Amino acid sequence: MAAGGAAGATVAEAGELVLIEALRPYLAPEGAGLELGAGDDAALWRPPAGANVVVTTDSLVEGVHFRAGAEEAAMADVGWKLLAVSLSDLAAMAATPGPAFLALSLPPSWPVSSVVYLYGGLADCAAAHGAQLAGGNFSAAPAAVLTSTCLGYVDPALALRRAGGEPGWALAVTGTLGGAAAALALERDGAPVEPAGAAAWRARLSRPEPRLEAARAAAAAGVRVGLDISDGLYRDAARLLGGAATGCVIDAGAIPLEAGVSEAWPERWTALAGGGEDYELLLAAPPAVMAGAAAAADAGGVPLRVIGELDSGDGVRLAVDGTERPAPPAGYEHFR
Amino acid sequence: MAAGGAAGATVAEAGELVLIEALRPYLAPEGAGLELGAGDDAALWRPPAGANVVVTTDSLVEGVHFRAGAEEAAMADVGWKLLAVSLSDLAAMAATPGPAFLALSLPPSWPVSSVVYLYGGLADCAAAHGAQLAGGNFSAAPAAVLTSTCLGYVDPALALRRAGGEPGWALAVTGTLGGAAAALALERDGAPVEPAGAAAWRARLSRPEPRLEAARAAAAAGVRVGLDISDGLYRDAARLLGGAATGCVIDAGAIPLEAGVSEAWPERWTALAGGGEDYELLLAAPPAVMAGAAAAADAGGVPLRVIGELDSGDGVRLAVDGTERPAPPAGYEHFR
Repeated sequence: MAAGGAAGATVAEAGELVLIEALRPYLAPEGAGLELGAGDDAALWRPPAGANVVVTTDSLVEGVHFRAGAEEAAMADVGWKLLAVSLSDLAAMAATPGPAFLALSLPPSWPVSSVVYLYGGLADCAAAHGAQLAGGNFSAAPAAVLTSTCLGYVDPALALRRAGGEPGWALAVTGTLGGAAAALALERDGAPVEPAGAAAWRARLSRPEPRLEAARAAAAAGVRVGLDISDGLYRDAARLLGGAATGCVIDAGAIPLEAGVSEAWPERWTALAGGGEDYELLLAAPPAVMAGAAAAADAGGVPLRVIGELDSGDGVRLAVDGTERPAPPAGYEHFR
Repeated sequence: MAAGGAAGATVAEAGELVLIEALRPYLAPEGAGLELGAGDDAALWRPPAGANVVVTTDSLVEGVHFRAGAEEAAMADVGWKLLAVSLSDLAAMAATPGPAFLALSLPPSWPVSSVVYLYGGLADCAAAHGAQLAGGNFSAAPAAVLTSTCLGYVDPALALRRAGGEPGWALAVTGTLGGAAAALALERDGAPVEPAGAAAWRARLSRPEPRLEAARAAAAAGVRVGLDISDGLYRDAARLLGGAATGCVIDAGAIPLEAGVSEAWPERWTALAGGGEDYELLLAAPPAVMAGAAAAADAGGVPLRVIGELDSGDGVRLAVDGTERPAPPAGYEHFR
């Protein structure tokens, strides 16, 4: 197996040096702007001239965001997701990924093989999306806390921001929503028969795809306002409000729902659509700009669909069969 | 108190939004290259034209690196140290600090006031050393894991690296060594009478000073090889070996020992000198270059003292009263 001489050992038995050696194959070589990677006190990175550096940091916690377990597929999924959630924040700025840094706090009893599988998933996600695993830090901890910090770069004139939307602007979302929340609901509630689409829902939860290309296509088409939907459609839509755009209305029938979700939960699908963890993008722009962005995103293979508009009303409302109501109180809040 | 309306609440009771509001006064305003700070999906930073970006990440873990406790002074010290250890890595590259990002994984039962005190220490260290607290991420966790990622910048031609030392080069160290290890030894073993110097030792452990100015002065004087002593003098000296410089000898009598340490531990002080956590710099350069660097560092108020030299011998040796022996097996190893 990939951990070589450390196979079967715990991280305490192997020690930090053996662990670093086992993970070296997964780290990015120097080059592509990375002047100095793992192995010195800090990394050196040369961003493109004139670009702004974009920085984001996220953690996955054992027992909160993932279960401990040494099975290869599960740990590789955790690695993928750890990087993907940070890359989704870069997508939310229309940035291009650069180096990523991991701070892994691990129980000394963790098998080295779990860390190797984790790095396999991290490296797969990095390769799929053009990021570079550039180094990081290990420490011992009572429960695993995995933190990724990703750097990227963007022309500041093209960066997506949360502020600046205006009444009358179209709201649009990439891809499909509700798959990750459906996977969580199925995991929690069970089902007598496996619903159609369940495998795809689980993939949305375990291996989210950061919408980097769609974001850059939308930015190139003139979109300047947006974010990624990590905490849920309705909760994140509220974060685009401000100034004259005090509210927005979302047409429930226009939400691009993950296949099978409304069939499995005919009463609850609007809440599941706002459940979060899909890591799609929510964008706002004048309708003509959004039409051009949608054409560009569609050409790149990720649909961008108008689901509503910003207005001067009161907060986030959902229109169901023509009747407006407050959006469901769905979505993730930390510490609650 | 500083936490305002959240006084006395736990982070679970307050929720993430109240917590973020309580911490806002400690965050850096936009400006000085920080184009977009906390509150969007990611931060935007504009490093000086032509500079390389330097990145480092470190974690402090409750129960491993610090004790839980709500007392103001203790939590402020943890905040100071969390940033200082990352800034020391920037010093080890001769870099200038930029924005810092925190990923705080906290037990839901933590008082909001502890987090506010933590940020007080972070902000003090940032202000003292020219870093900017630019944002970050909160998550719930069974035990607190605090991760800081610091960005900085450096002219790549002036960056300090670990590789490149040559036999005959002088080895030199900033400041004084052994204070932090003495504080730990005193905490563990106790003492019938408080030793002279103990208060200063504890300050070295709780509020380390990153040697940013001394590093830049040495780099400007031509020093190109060095690192910060985080794991201990002997362990970190071994990291400068490579190529023709297969060894080094350190003159025990030349080590600038923290005041009071050799008096309190006449038998053990060479081990305490290698105990780590002082966050001084260990530099290597041709003797004439080092003499110029020492003059520059002294002028800046942080002495730089030659303690030995690189050679083609076998590993790190300590010369005591003219007799060479292998360096004591002192210093910190993770997971052991």
